[in-house]
Amino acid sequence: MERIEQHASFGGRQEVWKHRSATLGCDMKFAVYLPAAALRGEACPVLYWLSGLSCTEQNFITKANAQAHAARHELIVVAPDTSPRGEGVADDPAYDLGQGAGFYLNATQAPWAPHFRMQDYVAEELPALVERHFPASDARAIAGHSMGGHGALVTALRHPGRYRSVSAFAPIVAPSQVPWGEKALAAYLGPDREAWKAWDAVELVKAPREERLPLRIDLGLADEFLDRELRPGLLEAACAAAGHPLQLHRRPGYDHSYYFVATFLGEHFEHHAHALGR
Amino acid sequence: MERIEQHASFGGRQEVWKHRSATLGCDMKFAVYLPAAALRGEACPVLYWLSGLSCTEQNFITKANAQAHAARHELIVVAPDTSPRGEGVADDPAYDLGQGAGFYLNATQAPWAPHFRMQDYVAEELPALVERHFPASDARAIAGHSMGGHGALVTALRHPGRYRSVSAFAPIVAPSQVPWGEKALAAYLGPDREAWKAWDAVELVKAPREERLPLRIDLGLADEFLDRELRPGLLEAACAAAGHPLQLHRRPGYDHSYYFVATFLGEHFEHHAHALGR
Repeated sequence: MERIEQHASFGGRQEVWKHRSATLGCDMKFAVYLPAAALRGEACPVLYWLSGLSCTEQNFITKANAQAHAARHELIVVAPDTSPRGEGVADDPAYDLGQGAGFYLNATQAPWAPHFRMQDYVAEELPALVERHFPASDARAIAGHSMGGHGALVTALRHPGRYRSVSAFAPIVAPSQVPWGEKALAAYLGPDREAWKAWDAVELVKAPREERLPLRIDLGLADEFLDRELRPGLLEAACAAAGHPLQLHRRPGYDHSYYFVATFLGEHFEHHAHALGR
Repeated sequence: MERIEQHASFGGRQEVWKHRSATLGCDMKFAVYLPAAALRGEACPVLYWLSGLSCTEQNFITKANAQAHAARHELIVVAPDTSPRGEGVADDPAYDLGQGAGFYLNATQAPWAPHFRMQDYVAEELPALVERHFPASDARAIAGHSMGGHGALVTALRHPGRYRSVSAFAPIVAPSQVPWGEKALAAYLGPDREAWKAWDAVELVKAPREERLPLRIDLGLADEFLDRELRPGLLEAACAAAGHPLQLHRRPGYDHSYYFVATFLGEHFEHHAHALGR
């Protein structure tokens, strides 16, 4: 594991690391913000951030001002890349399939299955690595944007007890029912829609569950993908029917961009810090 | 004048505009953040931000979280591009000369003189345009980073009474005495070093002045350009000798990046907001 970037930031340090991922079978980069308390060696809770289509580990750390909030609440923030990368890793020329578009699932179909195992990476390998190499406690939260909002919801719902809180900005809540999701799930999982249900927040909420972790979501009403790709009403209906707690905030005028994320990120950090005891 | 981007942000709106600049003889883009008060039509003071080498109007608005501070203090923030651009505008393959490297001066030498008049653009044409098209008062402040820190200091010092406050992050304070500056001033102004003095903050501070506007500067002590290009001691000595008020903050561990700018930008906004009566 090699540190390839480090910058002092809000009294802590923004770092980027590169490592060989056994799960993904390729080199991966991830960003980690260490607040001052972590630099002093104190164990801090960790917020995992999953980014959207076409992003890398860079987008969130350069555009969201997350460091100010992480410093205030003394949280470590980890932001992985959005897919396996590199030569020998399958890809597609479209921005919404292949490298940059891992959808945080474990693929079962050729040519994706050998490397596209982002769910195991973000839920297993990466937290184990973070908790071994940094002064991280085992108190975890997870959040994300767009495809990464889908990733955060699905990862939390698939791992009861693993995360203390979950939130999403403009998430894809029902990938089985929208164009981005249908394309990706068909490619990564094959045509059997029954197999898609394990990767769809709306379906996961509907199923009997031992844990009903509250879902915190913000959506911009000027989001250009709202009606076609995000369809929050599907999650509202599923949560209402299942009795799953949902806090859904609709924000008039806001679009799908990081200007929207940055505006409400402080509120999401409050949400996570509270659950993490900060 | 055409609006080419708009995003809701912290209760206000981040916009990007394109217009034909008579001063520069080319199309130019600039970013403007309008806080909620300005969207309601209330006249707000304006902070001008000048970016560094290789930047465009995008860097500051995507990386610094300026909108949070501008919203809190109800300030309009205007961020122009760093040089004239486009076909027919002289350029150089180096990142530190030509397009992206205007140095906020008025060039006198071929091939630069016809378009490279960034000082007149940022001090005259752009404020006039902003004060005509947006609900901007005539209360102005100016700030910048690196080459843009030089630009902010020089522009304020050359225009007594024009700005209520000035600040800079990691500025080039003595372009006549450092490699970036010597290269640019020789190209844009010719070999006569006497002509360079009008574009050098250290020289402008030394001269008799009707106004002694306090200079607020932050510098990172891990800045990779500190000793070779920034040389803050030259400005400290000149200010001490001339009795020019200077607040220079050295920040251990911080580098030249926007991680540094974002960390201390809130303090700079406090400084400007106070001077602007916000």
